Amino acid sequence: MSKQKIAVQVAGGCCAPISEAALDAEGAAEGAAVFKALADPIRLRLMSMIASADGESCVCDLTPPFDVSGPTISHHLRVLREAGLVDCERRGTWVYYWPVRERLQWISALLATPASASA
Amino acid sequence: MSKQKIAVQVAGGCCAPISEAALDAEGAAEGAAVFKALADPIRLRLMSMIASADGESCVCDLTPPFDVSGPTISHHLRVLREAGLVDCERRGTWVYYWPVRERLQWISALLATPASASA
Repeated sequence: MSKQKIAVQVAGGCCAPISEAALDAEGAAEGAAVFKALADPIRLRLMSMIASADGESCVCDLTPPFDVSGPTISHHLRVLREAGLVDCERRGTWVYYWPVRERLQWISALLATPASASA
Repeated sequence: MSKQKIAVQVAGGCCAPISEAALDAEGAAEGAAVFKALADPIRLRLMSMIASADGESCVCDLTPPFDVSGPTISHHLRVLREAGLVDCERRGTWVYYWPVRERLQWISALLATPASASA
Protein backbone atom coordinates (compact mmCIF):
# COMPACT_ATOMS: atom_id res chain seq x y z
CA MET A 1 0.00 0.00 0.00
CA SER A 2 1.38 3.41 -0.87
CA LYS A 3 1.57 5.82 2.06
CA GLN A 4 1.14 9.25 0.60
CA LYS A 5 1.64 11.93 3.23
CA ILE A 6 -1.11 14.23 2.08
CA ALA A 7 -2.65 16.92 4.25
CA VAL A 8 -6.11 16.83 2.71
CA GLN A 9 -8.69 19.29 3.94
CA VAL A 10 -11.73 17.05 4.24
CA ALA A 11 -15.17 18.67 4.10
CA GLY A 12 -16.48 18.82 7.66
CA GLY A 13 -13.07 18.88 9.31
CA CYS A 14 -9.29 18.76 8.99
CA CYS A 15 -6.70 16.19 8.06
CA ALA A 16 -6.05 13.03 6.08
CA PRO A 17 -7.17 9.65 7.51
CA ILE A 18 -4.97 8.51 10.39
CA SER A 19 -4.00 5.40 8.43
CA GLU A 20 -2.39 7.68 5.83
CA ALA A 21 -0.65 10.33 7.91
CA ALA A 22 0.01 11.14 11.56
CA LEU A 23 -2.05 14.04 12.90
CA ASP A 24 -0.36 17.23 14.00
CA ALA A 25 -1.27 18.77 17.38
CA GLU A 26 -3.98 20.98 15.85
CA GLY A 27 -5.67 18.15 13.93
CA ALA A 28 -5.51 15.90 17.00
CA ALA A 29 -7.18 18.59 19.11
CA GLU A 30 -10.01 18.97 16.57
CA GLY A 31 -10.56 15.22 16.26
CA ALA A 32 -10.32 14.56 20.01
CA ALA A 33 -12.96 17.22 20.71
CA VAL A 34 -15.44 15.42 18.43
CA PHE A 35 -14.62 12.01 19.92
CA LYS A 36 -15.14 13.50 23.39
CA ALA A 37 -18.68 14.44 22.35
CA LEU A 38 -19.28 10.81 21.31
CA ALA A 39 -17.54 9.33 24.37
CA ASP A 40 -20.65 9.21 26.53
CA PRO A 41 -23.18 6.35 26.15
CA ILE A 42 -26.22 8.63 26.38
CA ARG A 43 -24.80 11.10 23.85
CA LEU A 44 -23.79 8.33 21.45
CA ARG A 45 -27.27 6.83 21.70
CA LEU A 46 -28.86 10.24 21.10
CA MET A 47 -26.53 10.74 18.12
CA SER A 48 -27.59 7.35 16.71
CA MET A 49 -31.29 8.15 17.21
CA ILE A 50 -30.89 11.46 15.36
CA ALA A 51 -28.68 9.98 12.60
CA SER A 52 -31.00 7.03 11.92
CA ALA A 53 -34.27 9.00 11.97
CA ASP A 54 -36.17 9.72 8.79
CA GLY A 55 -35.99 13.52 8.90
CA GLU A 56 -35.84 15.58 12.07
CA SER A 57 -36.08 14.34 15.66
CA CYS A 58 -38.19 16.17 18.22
CA VAL A 59 -36.60 16.50 21.66
CA CYS A 60 -39.98 15.26 22.91
CA ASP A 61 -39.21 11.89 21.28
CA LEU A 62 -35.52 11.82 22.24
CA THR A 63 -36.09 12.19 25.99
CA PRO A 64 -38.47 9.35 27.00
CA PRO A 65 -36.13 6.39 26.21
CA PHE A 66 -33.70 7.57 28.91
CA ASP A 67 -33.86 7.42 32.68
CA VAL A 68 -32.54 10.96 33.05
CA SER A 69 -34.17 14.38 33.25
CA GLY A 70 -35.10 16.61 30.32
CA PRO A 71 -32.41 19.17 31.22
CA THR A 72 -29.78 16.40 31.22
CA ILE A 73 -30.83 15.35 27.71
CA SER A 74 -30.74 19.01 26.62
CA HIS A 75 -27.21 19.29 28.01
CA HIS A 76 -26.07 16.23 26.04
CA LEU A 77 -27.71 17.55 22.86
CA ARG A 78 -25.92 20.88 23.35
CA VAL A 79 -22.56 19.04 23.56
CA LEU A 80 -23.33 17.23 20.27
CA ARG A 81 -24.29 20.54 18.68
CA GLU A 82 -21.14 22.30 19.91
CA ALA A 83 -19.09 19.48 18.35
CA GLY A 84 -20.79 20.19 15.02
CA LEU A 85 -22.45 16.75 14.89
CA VAL A 86 -26.08 17.88 15.03
CA ASP A 87 -27.97 21.07 14.41
CA CYS A 88 -31.38 22.14 15.66
CA GLU A 89 -34.23 24.59 15.41
CA ARG A 90 -36.86 25.59 17.95
CA ARG A 91 -40.39 25.56 16.58
CA GLY A 92 -43.11 26.35 19.08
CA THR A 93 -42.78 24.28 22.26
CA TRP A 94 -40.18 21.86 20.98
CA VAL A 95 -36.65 21.80 19.57
CA TYR A 96 -36.03 19.64 16.49
CA TYR A 97 -32.63 18.04 15.75
CA TRP A 98 -31.01 16.67 12.61
CA PRO A 99 -27.57 15.15 11.93
CA VAL A 100 -24.78 17.13 10.24
CA ARG A 101 -23.87 14.31 7.85
CA GLU A 102 -20.80 16.10 6.48
CA ARG A 103 -19.31 16.15 10.00
CA LEU A 104 -20.13 12.45 10.56
CA GLN A 105 -18.57 11.57 7.20
CA TRP A 106 -15.45 13.48 8.16
CA ILE A 107 -14.96 11.81 11.54
CA SER A 108 -15.70 8.39 9.99
CA ALA A 109 -13.18 9.03 7.20
CA LEU A 110 -10.57 10.15 9.76
CA LEU A 111 -10.61 6.62 11.24
CA ALA A 112 -10.99 4.75 7.93
CA THR A 113 -8.31 2.20 7.29
CA PRO A 114 -7.93 0.12 4.11
CA ALA A 115 -9.43 -3.36 4.38
CA SER A 116 -6.48 -4.62 2.33
CA ALA A 117 -4.14 -3.57 5.13
CA SER A 118 -5.93 -5.78 7.65
CA ALA A 119 -3.86 -8.46 9.26
CA MET B 1 -32.85 5.70 1.03
CA SER B 2 -34.13 2.53 2.63
CA LYS B 3 -33.67 2.32 6.39
CA GLN B 4 -33.32 -1.34 7.19
CA LYS B 5 -33.24 -1.90 10.93
CA ILE B 6 -30.61 -4.59 10.94
CA ALA B 7 -28.57 -5.52 14.00
CA VAL B 8 -25.45 -6.57 12.15
CA GLN B 9 -22.56 -7.95 14.15
CA VAL B 10 -19.63 -6.14 12.56
CA ALA B 11 -16.18 -7.70 12.84
CA GLY B 12 -14.28 -5.77 15.52
CA GLY B 13 -17.37 -4.69 17.45
CA CYS B 14 -21.15 -4.57 17.72
CA CYS B 15 -23.99 -2.91 15.90
CA ALA B 16 -25.11 -1.50 12.57
CA PRO B 17 -23.95 2.02 11.52
CA ILE B 18 -25.71 4.76 13.50
CA SER B 19 -27.17 6.15 10.27
CA GLU B 20 -29.05 2.85 9.82
CA ALA B 21 -30.28 2.05 13.31
CA ALA B 22 -30.29 3.58 16.78
CA LEU B 23 -27.89 1.93 19.22
CA ASP B 24 -29.21 0.10 22.26
CA ALA B 25 -27.68 0.80 25.67
CA GLU B 26 -25.15 -2.02 25.33
CA GLY B 27 -23.94 -0.97 21.88
CA ALA B 28 -23.72 2.66 22.99
CA ALA B 29 -21.58 1.65 25.98
CA GLU B 30 -19.19 -0.29 23.74
CA GLY B 31 -18.89 2.51 21.19
CA ALA B 32 -18.56 5.26 23.80
CA ALA B 33 -15.70 3.38 25.50
CA VAL B 34 -13.73 3.37 22.24
CA PHE B 35 -14.48 7.03 21.54
CA LYS B 36 -13.31 7.85 25.08
CA ALA B 37 -9.95 6.29 24.25
CA LEU B 38 -9.72 8.56 21.17
CA ALA B 39 -11.02 11.66 23.00
CA ASP B 40 -7.60 12.86 24.16
CA PRO B 41 -5.33 14.82 21.75
CA ILE B 42 -2.17 12.95 22.79
CA ARG B 43 -3.85 9.54 22.47
CA LEU B 44 -5.38 10.41 19.11
CA ARG B 45 -1.98 11.58 17.85
CA LEU B 46 -0.35 8.39 19.13
CA MET B 47 -3.10 6.35 17.44
CA SER B 48 -2.46 8.20 14.16
CA MET B 49 1.31 7.65 14.43
CA ILE B 50 0.79 3.92 14.98
CA ALA B 51 -1.92 3.60 12.28
CA SER B 52 0.10 5.46 9.63
CA ALA B 53 3.43 3.73 10.30
CA ASP B 54 4.82 1.16 7.90
CA GLY B 55 4.87 -1.83 10.26
CA GLU B 56 5.35 -1.61 14.02
CA SER B 57 6.10 1.49 16.08
CA CYS B 58 8.69 1.40 18.85
CA VAL B 59 7.70 3.25 22.02
CA CYS B 60 11.17 4.81 21.75
CA ASP B 61 9.97 6.60 18.58
CA LEU B 62 6.48 7.41 19.89
CA THR B 63 7.66 9.30 22.99
CA PRO B 64 10.03 12.07 21.73
CA PRO B 65 7.44 14.12 19.74
CA PHE B 66 5.53 14.89 22.96
CA ASP B 67 6.30 17.22 25.85
CA VAL B 68 5.24 14.65 28.42
CA SER B 69 7.08 11.92 30.34
CA GLY B 70 7.64 8.35 29.18
CA PRO B 71 5.27 6.96 31.84
CA THR B 72 2.53 9.33 30.63
CA ILE B 73 2.95 8.06 27.07
CA SER B 74 2.87 4.49 28.37
CA HIS B 75 -0.37 5.25 30.20
CA HIS B 76 -1.98 6.63 27.02
CA LEU B 77 -0.81 3.61 25.02
CA ARG B 78 -2.32 1.31 27.64
CA VAL B 79 -5.69 3.09 27.28
CA LEU B 80 -5.57 2.56 23.48
CA ARG B 81 -4.71 -1.09 24.02
CA GLU B 82 -7.51 -1.63 26.54
CA ALA B 83 -9.94 -0.15 23.97
CA GLY B 84 -8.76 -2.77 21.47
CA LEU B 85 -7.33 -0.17 19.07
CA VAL B 86 -3.67 -1.20 19.27
CA ASP B 87 -1.74 -4.23 20.36
CA CYS B 88 1.86 -4.54 21.42
CA GLU B 89 4.78 -6.83 22.21
CA ARG B 90 7.82 -6.28 24.39
CA ARG B 91 11.09 -7.27 22.73
CA GLY B 92 14.20 -6.59 24.75
CA THR B 93 14.28 -3.03 26.08
CA TRP B 94 11.37 -1.67 24.07
CA VAL B 95 7.67 -2.26 23.49
CA TYR B 96 6.45 -2.29 19.87
CA TYR B 97 2.91 -1.25 18.88
CA TRP B 98 0.73 -1.92 15.86
CA PRO B 99 -2.85 -0.92 14.97
CA VAL B 100 -5.78 -3.35 15.26
CA ARG B 101 -7.20 -2.44 11.84
CA GLU B 102 -10.35 -4.53 12.32
CA ARG B 103 -11.23 -2.40 15.36
CA LEU B 104 -10.54 0.86 13.50
CA GLN B 105 -12.67 -0.34 10.58
CA TRP B 106 -15.49 -1.14 12.96
CA ILE B 107 -15.50 2.25 14.73
CA SER B 108 -15.20 4.05 11.38
CA ALA B 109 -18.11 2.02 9.95
CA LEU B 110 -20.20 2.76 13.05
CA LEU B 111 -20.12 6.47 12.13
CA ALA B 112 -20.38 6.01 8.37
CA THR B 113 -23.27 7.83 6.78
CA PRO B 114 -24.28 7.65 3.12
CA ALA B 115 -22.94 10.53 1.02
CA SER B 116 -26.25 10.51 -0.86
CA ALA B 117 -28.04 11.46 2.34
CA SER B 118 -25.94 14.61 2.71
CA ALA B 119 -27.83 17.88 2.70
